[in-house]
Amino acid sequence: MADVLPRSDGALLRVCRGEPAPVTPVWFMRQAGRALPEYRAARGETPMLQACLDRDLIVELTLQPVRRYRVDAAILFSDITVPLALSGVSLRIEPGVGPVFDQPVRRAADVARIRPLDRGSMTPIVEAVRLLVGELAGIPLIGFAGAPFTLASYLVEGGPSRDHAVTKALMYSDPATWHALLDRLADISREFLLAQIDAGVSVVQVFDSWAGALHPDDYRRYVAPHSGKLLAGLPVPRIHFGVGTGELLPQFRAVGADVVGVDWRVPLDVAARRIGADAVVQGNLDPAVVFAPWPVLEAAVRDVLIRGRAARGHIFNLGHGVLPSTDPGVLAAIVDFVHAWSADRSARGVPTAVDRFGSEHPAAEAAG
Amino acid sequence: MADVLPRSDGALLRVCRGEPAPVTPVWFMRQAGRALPEYRAARGETPMLQACLDRDLIVELTLQPVRRYRVDAAILFSDITVPLALSGVSLRIEPGVGPVFDQPVRRAADVARIRPLDRGSMTPIVEAVRLLVGELAGIPLIGFAGAPFTLASYLVEGGPSRDHAVTKALMYSDPATWHALLDRLADISREFLLAQIDAGVSVVQVFDSWAGALHPDDYRRYVAPHSGKLLAGLPVPRIHFGVGTGELLPQFRAVGADVVGVDWRVPLDVAARRIGADAVVQGNLDPAVVFAPWPVLEAAVRDVLIRGRAARGHIFNLGHGVLPSTDPGVLAAIVDFVHAWSADRSARGVPTAVDRFGSEHPAAEAAG
Repeated sequence: MADVLPRSDGALLRVCRGEPAPVTPVWFMRQAGRALPEYRAARGETPMLQACLDRDLIVELTLQPVRRYRVDAAILFSDITVPLALSGVSLRIEPGVGPVFDQPVRRAADVARIRPLDRGSMTPIVEAVRLLVGELAGIPLIGFAGAPFTLASYLVEGGPSRDHAVTKALMYSDPATWHALLDRLADISREFLLAQIDAGVSVVQVFDSWAGALHPDDYRRYVAPHSGKLLAGLPVPRIHFGVGTGELLPQFRAVGADVVGVDWRVPLDVAARRIGADAVVQGNLDPAVVFAPWPVLEAAVRDVLIRGRAARGHIFNLGHGVLPSTDPGVLAAIVDFVHAWSADRSARGVPTAVDRFGSEHPAAEAAG
Repeated sequence: MADVLPRSDGALLRVCRGEPAPVTPVWFMRQAGRALPEYRAARGETPMLQACLDRDLIVELTLQPVRRYRVDAAILFSDITVPLALSGVSLRIEPGVGPVFDQPVRRAADVARIRPLDRGSMTPIVEAVRLLVGELAGIPLIGFAGAPFTLASYLVEGGPSRDHAVTKALMYSDPATWHALLDRLADISREFLLAQIDAGVSVVQVFDSWAGALHPDDYRRYVAPHSGKLLAGLPVPRIHFGVGTGELLPQFRAVGADVVGVDWRVPLDVAARRIGADAVVQGNLDPAVVFAPWPVLEAAVRDVLIRGRAARGHIFNLGHGVLPSTDPGVLAAIVDFVHAWSADRSARGVPTAVDRFGSEHPAAEAAG
């Protein structure tokens, strides 16, 4: 894989450990995806779950964005519902919709039907990780899994939901079943992560995509213990991300995240102060800013980098996944800009008293 | 309308003006809606836009929740897209989907096709407001309109959107067209409000449902001037609400809100501190908590009331609209509880050092 050069000299792992790094590392959530023509060509009509269990396809789709964008990390091509499918849950992933379940989970007997994850069923994934670690020649491979709340919401609703009403109704009215379900899901996602770690991933990211739908007290009572069980004591750095989690950021760290992923709504200096001393953050360019002309886009990227300096460490990323209509060339240009800007020590001295449009912003002093 | 008694002695208007009130006033966003069997009976198969232009139906649907719940305010039955339809925009509101537009707005010529709002076209609405003010016998009638960003997102996308990608692309890449569009929409929504105010509504609520999708700097540059134009100097109190706006709350106030509506994600004491001194807030019970058993629900309602005391004034509401599967009896019980609890001066002394589950919460000291 001669065209993949380690650009960052281990920057991603250093930042995860809270250590200084020579450049700001960068990767993109959903970097392996439909924005890439080579992805569309390789996946063709293969259904998502089938693709996630095809060793050679996993390897190819995981490597594509590393070749194309020269990002500082690969992320395993998979889906948060893969371990559910391997645990006996009947589901399919519908394009443009998301995961759809034939039998929603609503009572204790439904929970009992979800089997523990058998590592033997993960063979294609484990083999793909081993092959990838060799191919990547030192570029970190990020493993991943879904957090219990987000998996539970899909299972209880029977698919994606705008309001998570059925999920919350179960949570409030039958807490015994709720906690049994989330405990089971934490075990499954943990086993999914441990298999990836044993096979060689050097970082993991846990997605709690929908946790932002919860009031902070509900998150604390009904979700945090289970996310904590999933994350506790894993032997590699843990990134934890969700959307709309502005009020949950301190709890995301408290449940066991070494790095807190932040969506684009919360400026990183605000996020860092909210999380507390020694926060390491990941994010958070609005995925739609890639459609802006370069001067507007560059100002937005620079603003993220400047605000990120308020944290102890910063991994550059989007604030959510790459949108399918994104121009890959723009993402490549962002990677180059982040590396060049962050490697230039003189640029680090730029004052931060203004937002990216030149207006004063209230967070400036604390972020400086 | 003998069965409607003014319960709150003008509490809603007092709170809007920042004055003390004998009880906490309460109403519910989307209180006129499918949760009520009498609503489903009265609307039948009438399409939404047609219903919003039927004088007698507007009156009936607006009054139903006041009779049923004994809330402290009625809100005019309408839709934020009604003034667009009256301004020559071709649209329909599809059940379960939302507004769908035949010709999305993408360039300056599309903006030019949107006519200013002719007040003559609003006759059924104006007449309905006049009738309602008489029927309501002192209970405030809330008028409403959509804010420019949310209307623009529907127009540019051609309907509801998860990521607002096309909207943001236009905003970043063609700011002249963008600002022309939002300026036109501000004028239309302002005229829609002024007609309601002239006919007798005593409060207005402006919905910027999707503004929470914006980074605070983008809101400041691309949206705030237009929301400010819409709200400036209106002669009645202005409530301004959006979903996922935790980082935008101070700006929501700054553009001209007397009362800032808060979704359920941000505890009201946190919101009040973020907005600043003299904040008056509205909200913010999670609409899905109505599915909880009464003790869990009561604790959640009490928690909202206690946290609301951190603000200068508080109007009790949900943190988003009533969900269609809500039991109306539960909403009525919430109204009674809010009135009884807030009228009981001894209850006001309850300490706030714990969250509603009895755990300490970090915001407690500052909120006390």
